Amino acid sequence: MEALVYQGHGKKAVEDRPMPEVKAYTDAIVKVLKTTICGTDLHILKGDVPTCEPGRILGHEGVGMVETIGAGVTAVKPGDHVLISCITSCGKCDYCRKGMYSHCTTGGWILGNRIDGTQTEYVRIPHADTSLYRVPPGADEEALVMLSDILPTGFECGVLNGKITPGDTVAIVGSGPIGLAALLTAQFYSPAEIIMVDMDDNRLEVAKRLGATAAVSNRDGKAVDKVMQMTGGGVDCAIEAVGVPATFLVCEDIVAPGGTIANIGVHGVKVDLHLERLWAHNVTITTRLVDTVTTPMLLKTVQSRKIDPKQLITHRFTLDQILDAYDTFGKAAHTKALKVIINAA
Amino acid sequence: MEALVYQGHGKKAVEDRPMPEVKAYTDAIVKVLKTTICGTDLHILKGDVPTCEPGRILGHEGVGMVETIGAGVTAVKPGDHVLISCITSCGKCDYCRKGMYSHCTTGGWILGNRIDGTQTEYVRIPHADTSLYRVPPGADEEALVMLSDILPTGFECGVLNGKITPGDTVAIVGSGPIGLAALLTAQFYSPAEIIMVDMDDNRLEVAKRLGATAAVSNRDGKAVDKVMQMTGGGVDCAIEAVGVPATFLVCEDIVAPGGTIANIGVHGVKVDLHLERLWAHNVTITTRLVDTVTTPMLLKTVQSRKIDPKQLITHRFTLDQILDAYDTFGKAAHTKALKVIINAA
Amino acid sequence: MEALVYQGHGKKAVEDRPMPEVKAYTDAIVKVLKTTICGTDLHILKGDVPTCEPGRILGHEGVGMVETIGAGVTAVKPGDHVLISCITSCGKCDYCRKGMYSHCTTGGWILGNRIDGTQTEYVRIPHADTSLYRVPPGADEEALVMLSDILPTGFECGVLNGKITPGDTVAIVGSGPIGLAALLTAQFYSPAEIIMVDMDDNRLEVAKRLGATAAVSNRDGKAVDKVMQMTGGGVDCAIEAVGVPATFLVCEDIVAPGGTIANIGVHGVKVDLHLERLWAHNVTITTRLVDTVTTPMLLKTVQSRKIDPKQLITHRFTLDQILDAYDTFGKAAHTKALKVIINAA
Amino acid sequence: MEALVYQGHGKKAVEDRPMPEVKAYTDAIVKVLKTTICGTDLHILKGDVPTCEPGRILGHEGVGMVETIGAGVTAVKPGDHVLISCITSCGKCDYCRKGMYSHCTTGGWILGNRIDGTQTEYVRIPHADTSLYRVPPGADEEALVMLSDILPTGFECGVLNGKITPGDTVAIVGSGPIGLAALLTAQFYSPAEIIMVDMDDNRLEVAKRLGATAAVSNRDGKAVDKVMQMTGGGVDCAIEAVGVPATFLVCEDIVAPGGTIANIGVHGVKVDLHLERLWAHNVTITTRLVDTVTTPMLLKTVQSRKIDPKQLITHRFTLDQILDAYDTFGKAAHTKALKVIINAA
Repeated sequence: MEALVYQGHGKKAVEDRPMPEVKAYTDAIVKVLKTTICGTDLHILKGDVPTCEPGRILGHEGVGMVETIGAGVTAVKPGDHVLISCITSCGKCDYCRKGMYSHCTTGGWILGNRIDGTQTEYVRIPHADTSLYRVPPGADEEALVMLSDILPTGFECGVLNGKITPGDTVAIVGSGPIGLAALLTAQFYSPAEIIMVDMDDNRLEVAKRLGATAAVSNRDGKAVDKVMQMTGGGVDCAIEAVGVPATFLVCEDIVAPGGTIANIGVHGVKVDLHLERLWAHNVTITTRLVDTVTTPMLLKTVQSRKIDPKQLITHRFTLDQILDAYDTFGKAAHTKALKVIINAA
Repeated sequence: MEALVYQGHGKKAVEDRPMPEVKAYTDAIVKVLKTTICGTDLHILKGDVPTCEPGRILGHEGVGMVETIGAGVTAVKPGDHVLISCITSCGKCDYCRKGMYSHCTTGGWILGNRIDGTQTEYVRIPHADTSLYRVPPGADEEALVMLSDILPTGFECGVLNGKITPGDTVAIVGSGPIGLAALLTAQFYSPAEIIMVDMDDNRLEVAKRLGATAAVSNRDGKAVDKVMQMTGGGVDCAIEAVGVPATFLVCEDIVAPGGTIANIGVHGVKVDLHLERLWAHNVTITTRLVDTVTTPMLLKTVQSRKIDPKQLITHRFTLDQILDAYDTFGKAAHTKALKVIINAA
Repeated sequence: MEALVYQGHGKKAVEDRPMPEVKAYTDAIVKVLKTTICGTDLHILKGDVPTCEPGRILGHEGVGMVETIGAGVTAVKPGDHVLISCITSCGKCDYCRKGMYSHCTTGGWILGNRIDGTQTEYVRIPHADTSLYRVPPGADEEALVMLSDILPTGFECGVLNGKITPGDTVAIVGSGPIGLAALLTAQFYSPAEIIMVDMDDNRLEVAKRLGATAAVSNRDGKAVDKVMQMTGGGVDCAIEAVGVPATFLVCEDIVAPGGTIANIGVHGVKVDLHLERLWAHNVTITTRLVDTVTTPMLLKTVQSRKIDPKQLITHRFTLDQILDAYDTFGKAAHTKALKVIINAA
Repeated sequence: MEALVYQGHGKKAVEDRPMPEVKAYTDAIVKVLKTTICGTDLHILKGDVPTCEPGRILGHEGVGMVETIGAGVTAVKPGDHVLISCITSCGKCDYCRKGMYSHCTTGGWILGNRIDGTQTEYVRIPHADTSLYRVPPGADEEALVMLSDILPTGFECGVLNGKITPGDTVAIVGSGPIGLAALLTAQFYSPAEIIMVDMDDNRLEVAKRLGATAAVSNRDGKAVDKVMQMTGGGVDCAIEAVGVPATFLVCEDIVAPGGTIANIGVHGVKVDLHLERLWAHNVTITTRLVDTVTTPMLLKTVQSRKIDPKQLITHRFTLDQILDAYDTFGKAAHTKALKVIINAA
């Protein structure tokens, strides 16, 4: 089968690979129908993710059809259409039992990282009963691809950790796909204001279309001043959706006393935490690798049309165009790509 | 009347001052019975607190008797013995209405800072109805002095923010008075382990007497290793009770995935936040200036003997010995002082 | 001044009354601009509310302009337009300090009950600083009348107590003004389904227009069967918005294991609680007299257009037409009245 | 093997039964070391539990040693000493994933009810990975038998649902084993007062020894008056630990405004809920079949000696004395039995 394979720092290729097989009684083999590319895949290609070794099939998102199952799988059966979670969860370990699937002792983020992923035709899913979700009848499968990773990430790490409540003032720093996922799901809680901060005017335009009440460009480095002026003293919740020190500092500067900074960004270096000021500001700072514990809830919100994740999809490719898809996604500032769909079957 | 007055950087003196008078409808004049000295008073003397100007009577803790009240005061009357909260709260502003008294728009920490304080014979208490608490009949007033500041601080900023639950593993970094207050109140929630970290062997001994299940010296700089080994992977809650970068870093290093760092310490400089590691650890970091919103709850726990705050008192003085009291408190490493009681009447 | 006065069981009249005066330093006299009639006013007229004695000016809702203030009032000043809360809160007592204003020891629901109310030209508001809310600039004052009682009641007693979260299935039993207020505010949290149950087809039609995803008539007594079938096993949250045993029983029958019954209705008699079945269903049942603690939050949601409370207003009158207004409101099944606005100035 | 078998209404006998065998991948066969008798077993014998058919081996509590495991079991291995949870949990279904194991679609309370139980020599445990807990090294296995059912039941249904916090006033109505389990675990949260209500003086004596701050006899029917007088207006949390209307009514009568009634009792008939009074009291009423989701937490509290569950054990028997054990446990008023240990190996 055709697969997009990481070949070491900066290198990737489409290779022909053998079909995966059931190895454990809890495994399922899933025929990939639709997948996508994540910012994390680009990080892997840059060599930033040491757990991912050359030879790995990338991809941790997708919708597929169950092909075969191990003897212990009871929740899905061959022929079922399923959503593949980016997080593998055993359902048994201490972490899984407390809903922290990201730290599952035999799972977590392994797909397209420690084991072969979804940017191919078939994928082996360990702990299938607790890592796959049946697609509801009549669902738009393209939209559901957004539920593998990006929507639960924006929702859990940004919105839930940010404790957004009706009437709140929220700022989301970073208007890329993940910031926009936070923007979409923040609206579940009816905040009064959602201020989007970014450097890219196109992305700010998209944010306005997706529900932002204000868009603030930080190209002049004055986003903090603007947000402070608009809010008269800061925001209840600042969501960091980039992953660099500068954007985290913006969050420190705009969070109001009693507020929350919810970090989503994947950081490569430390940041300055200005405790000499914040110690007395009654703030909460949270970090989180997505647990995908809210996937069942998100499926309900999509099915009841409380949210339309398709709004994040800008481009569509077939699996044999996947190198083009990477190219388009990688040059997002130029192509205006947000999420790209790769039809694998 | 006799008063301990801040005279500018490094200087203090006992001065004769006029009696305070009711200025607003909601004021009360309280005759000070017992007061104490706080680490923050030492900070003021070092010049670290710019809001506190020379000429100020210091002190924000104490128990007293109401002498006179403004026309609008209804909750206390002359003759009532009262606990003086270190935080002044109007009960009306948005912050007060949501329990964040520390940020009261006409109060907060003003006593012995922006207005004259308690290290004297009489003190004016603004917003008396919502800043004084009647002493329960039969209460030990010396013990209650610990409820003005140190116990609610340890409890709210450390224990409540740290979300300690039964069976948890807790580390408290800093075994001074505030760390010990966290230690005492952490036991309200029956954690399995409370590991105390400090450099001072005497304070670690005291911690063990007050309920620590383990005491770890960091004089060799190996506290992190020791705690990680004892806990097999970190603590559910790390409480920072010093206020310097090194101790905050210890907290970052020992907090387990899913855990909380609850900062109590007053920080003078920024710290490094290692988001390049913590971004995926699902941790929560909190800061807080004490709100004293739990004072009624703490009074009940003292009255029902769930806690004995007197254990924190090591020395006793009269008001005319207050310079000695400062000396003893200031040289705590030598005198083994924790909290000192100053009998003002 | 003209006032609608309760004259004992079944009797009311428009009387000429003297202007109210400031009695306490925390009082304000408010010129009533707009008021309304509440179902509770009808209860008083039926003699169901023994605390309300003949001679009382009725009404506990409204928007007005501050005329004069007592010496201790600081949050509002003459000329300010204000929202009058149906709950009077001192801001000082134990209940107020924990946000349970409904049980304020010198307040609670007293307006138009134990003291004269708002269905007149001027009203005395005790504890003005903590019982009035300034009208935001540019606000629609007619819409804000809904924030005196009905919206916080539906929101606090129904939606917040019902712990509604995104994707939930909710049923609201009773589609009168209070059930519709719950319907409007439930949508703050993006439930997947909101099923409205009533006997009155007109009110069910209104409910659909206001956001219900399904409307179930109980005229055939089969609402329980229908809801169970629609939901495949019951609802996450059942809100009781009538106040009689039959509707509470519907809630007991449709709540799913793990769900919540949030009672809003004012009950006159006991109900059967089927613990022989519910003991093992992990359900929560809540009761609440509105605290109006969410008024600031609700003001923000109205100002940011997350909700349009004007949708509840069906009729408008002037103060001298107030007897007509009562007639219209009292015959709601016939007049299709929901909330009526009475313009007093 | 020897087994205590339910033989239909009122009848039980010791029978010889074949060893159980692994039927599913996820089963384990556990050699029973220690078991006990639960009040629910007596209910079964009275014919109150229709799901339990004649021929069933009773018992849903115990500590044992794993004998054999199915191919899919990974968390325990032969030779491991394990605590057997009274609740079987698959770890996969929607209920298990949200921590509501009591309603597991293929588990819940099935042991000694729908499938053979623990009052024998060997027992088959389905979903072994998520229904057994390894005994910590050095643990007192007799004490751990209390963690199969009675301690998590008292803790989850009574204490956690009752939201007990430091300084609270608590009443526990019913001082039998389950009420005492609530008493022991309530102390995790340092309430100021725990008032125990019962008719049996011996059990009230035991309650005092186990930490009750007051014991109130209801033999004169005046418990409500006494509790109201002692508390000056009611309790923050009333725990129902009997399961009859009279005791639930006591809870309704003693709960303070803002308080909680946490039901533990297994009820056979409906109760009167006095909503005509409680509708405005801001109370919460909860029901729950134990989920045993806190078993890991409780194991930590036992291991760290925050609680000593052995205090509940009054009698000890061997398996061949099990009929005597039932006799002793059944006549508790006479024998003063609380929990009896049956040593099966």
